[in-house]
Parts: sequence; structure tokens; C-alpha cells
Amino acid sequence: MAFKYYIPAESISELTINRLSVYLRCLQQLENENTTTISSQELAERFHLNSAQIRKDLAYFGEFGTRGVGYNVPKLREHLVNILGLNEERRVLLVGAGNLGTALSHYSGFNTRGFRMVAILDADPHKIGKRVPGGLTVEDVAELPRIVKERKVHIGVITVPATSAQKVFDQLVAAGVQAVLNFAPAQLKGHPEVKLKHVDLKISLELLSFFLGHASRIASMS
Amino acid sequence: MAFKYYIPAESISELTINRLSVYLRCLQQLENENTTTISSQELAERFHLNSAQIRKDLAYFGEFGTRGVGYNVPKLREHLVNILGLNEERRVLLVGAGNLGTALSHYSGFNTRGFRMVAILDADPHKIGKRVPGGLTVEDVAELPRIVKERKVHIGVITVPATSAQKVFDQLVAAGVQAVLNFAPAQLKGHPEVKLKHVDLKISLELLSFFLGHASRIASMS
Repeated sequence: MAFKYYIPAESISELTINRLSVYLRCLQQLENENTTTISSQELAERFHLNSAQIRKDLAYFGEFGTRGVGYNVPKLREHLVNILGLNEERRVLLVGAGNLGTALSHYSGFNTRGFRMVAILDADPHKIGKRVPGGLTVEDVAELPRIVKERKVHIGVITVPATSAQKVFDQLVAAGVQAVLNFAPAQLKGHPEVKLKHVDLKISLELLSFFLGHASRIASMS
Repeated sequence: MAFKYYIPAESISELTINRLSVYLRCLQQLENENTTTISSQELAERFHLNSAQIRKDLAYFGEFGTRGVGYNVPKLREHLVNILGLNEERRVLLVGAGNLGTALSHYSGFNTRGFRMVAILDADPHKIGKRVPGGLTVEDVAELPRIVKERKVHIGVITVPATSAQKVFDQLVAAGVQAVLNFAPAQLKGHPEVKLKHVDLKISLELLSFFLGHASRIASMS
């Protein structure tokens, strides 16, 4: 019945953390609907999740439910916010003001609770000085070290072409950024003290391709 | 020892399919390095995966390994290509020629083996007729039903603002598209015969936020 969460000593997989994000969205929706209590079974049925998996994932971080009653929705939501570190502001810097970078600079979610976009950089003199839709002005990538330090950047997002991605990653690491999200289709050599996550948008297309190949079963799987 | 794969009767989760995509990338890399055989343990260690999970995921689709020897890398890669349906061409249509749509129209991976981008549509008269970097010309969204039919589109990708996303989804369904990837930050009402996948880019940022909160453990988790 302890509602404090603890940081587990063992490794937690990225898939577990991604599922916490999914649970958080489900709980937010339930809270919007004024649901105050839900069991892992109900949560699983409502959102097509796995109830044993939910219990196992949450058990990493403590005991959140009450046996026979279930989870308190607002409390569990708040715990997930804390576990994911979304109760603090994470300052995000974007490198690469092309179409993808510009899109992300005003992507809903990159500038909401927990995250704040503080800069968008590029090396192209034609782009530097231009305003992007989110309200930021493109700054010179040569200023990266100063901007990271002054604006206390936590997360760097790489949206440059594949050929420049490693150089940008190394610059972000040298400047002291602790976490990097890479959208460039390049395998980057990481750094032991910096968390690097590669976003591969093709994986979502491959998922759809699988379902197309087994179309008769789509209805039961969505 | 049968190398044919079969389509399982029970439901397979999206997470399993996403892991198949990850295994495919690992095997492609191993094949590039001329590795011909690998055990699930070696595969797990090399790419920071879980060997029991690998065996369980693959077991859904048949028996691919040889006990005491491991997996034949090129054969397993080819099986995964077939399971994911990437041996056939999936034709992709994009709706929304803003920054994100334009970025995706020439995103590496959306136009490689297995996928072909056949159209990008928009409602804005200023965008219609303009060429995007991938080589396509923006067409009028009013032509969606004709284009889907003539170009035999399998997958629709939605990159319009949230307020228009449901309307576009319904148009894609009415036109006969079987699978939809939605980038708009909107909860769409689905259709029982159409596979709908929502891409939430914020989940990757939340993953990094988690690791920032537990930075001392980053090195052991990458």
C-alpha cells in the first residue's frame, strides 16, 4: 500500500518505459472522463493492453494498487509523471532546420508539459535568422556550445542529413547535453554517459505492412 | 527444423511486430559483416536484446534455429522480410504537404525496399502543383478517391492538422485504403477493417526524460 516509488537497481528496458508512456496517456484519458479507480484487468480491456504486463511494469517502481480495488487513477497518473521525470522541465534543442526539424519545432508534445523547445540551429546562412512556426528563430549551429550552456539544454534532437549526424552528435556531447534523439538515418557511435535514442519511422510502416499481409485478422488485433 | 513460417491463429501484439523490425535491422547489419550463423544469446548480447524474448517472438512464426548451432543469418533475415510483408511493394500515399508531410515524402525508409511513395496530397491551392524534394508533385486532396484506386494505394499517412485528421481518415477508408499511419495529434475513431496506427513522437522524448532522471544508470542501459 506504499505510494512512494523507488528507483530499481536492475536495468529497465526501453520497452518498459515506452509502456509507461502509454499507460500515462490511458490514465489521462480516464481522468478526463472522471474515472477515479480502475483495476489492471479493466485498464487492459479498455485500452487493449496486457494486464499481467501492466502489473509487472508498475511493480518495478513500487506498489501502486490496492488489492481487490485497483489503482487510484489520478494518483497513479501523478506517479507515472514523476517516474518519467515530466514534473521537471526538460529543455530541448533542435539541430537541423529542414522540413523535419521545422515540423518538430512546433509538433504538439515537443512543447507541452515536461518539455520546452529552447532553440533550433542550422548551418545554412539562408536559414539562420528565419522564424519557424513555433516562434523560435533559427540560430547558427556554430553557437551550439554557448546556447547549450546558457539555456541549460537537457535534450538534443538531430534532424540534419545522415552525413552530418555524427558530427552534430559529437558537438552535443562535447557541449554537455545528456540525452539525444536522432532522426537522421545514420548509425551513430554513442557515448557512455549520454543516452542516445534513434527514431526509426519506418518501423511503423513495417507494422502496417505486417497487418496488410494478414488482413483477415486485422479486426481482432486493433 | 522446418524453415517455412506459418501465420499464427492467436493475436500477435504490435510490440512483437516492432521487435521483428528490430531483429531485421540487426540481421541486416550482421549480414553486411558476413556473419552467417548466430545464436539467440549472441544476438541478444550483441544488440542489447533479450534472448528468451527473441526465441519467444520467433516461435510465433515457426522454427527457425538449429539447436546447438543457432540461426542462419541470411535465411532468418529473409523470413523476417516475408513475415513483415516487405517482399511485396506497399504503395504509400501522404495527405498533408506541410513540413512533416514534406519531410516524410523524402524520408529514407518511406521509399526503400518494401515501400513506395506514390502521392502527396493537400487542400491548399498554394501547395497543389508544387514539387516536393522526393520528386512528387503535390496533388489536390479532392482527387484522393481516384488516386487511391488508380495507384492501388495500400497505406495512407496522415500529416494534416489535428482538426482535419478524422475527415482525412474517413476519406482514406471510403477510398479503400487498408492501413493508416496517423501523425496528427488527434484520437481518431477507427474502422474495424482498417489497421490504424498512431505515431506519438513525444514517447521518445519521455523515454529520454526517464533516463535523465536516472542519469547515473544510463551507462548500463544503453
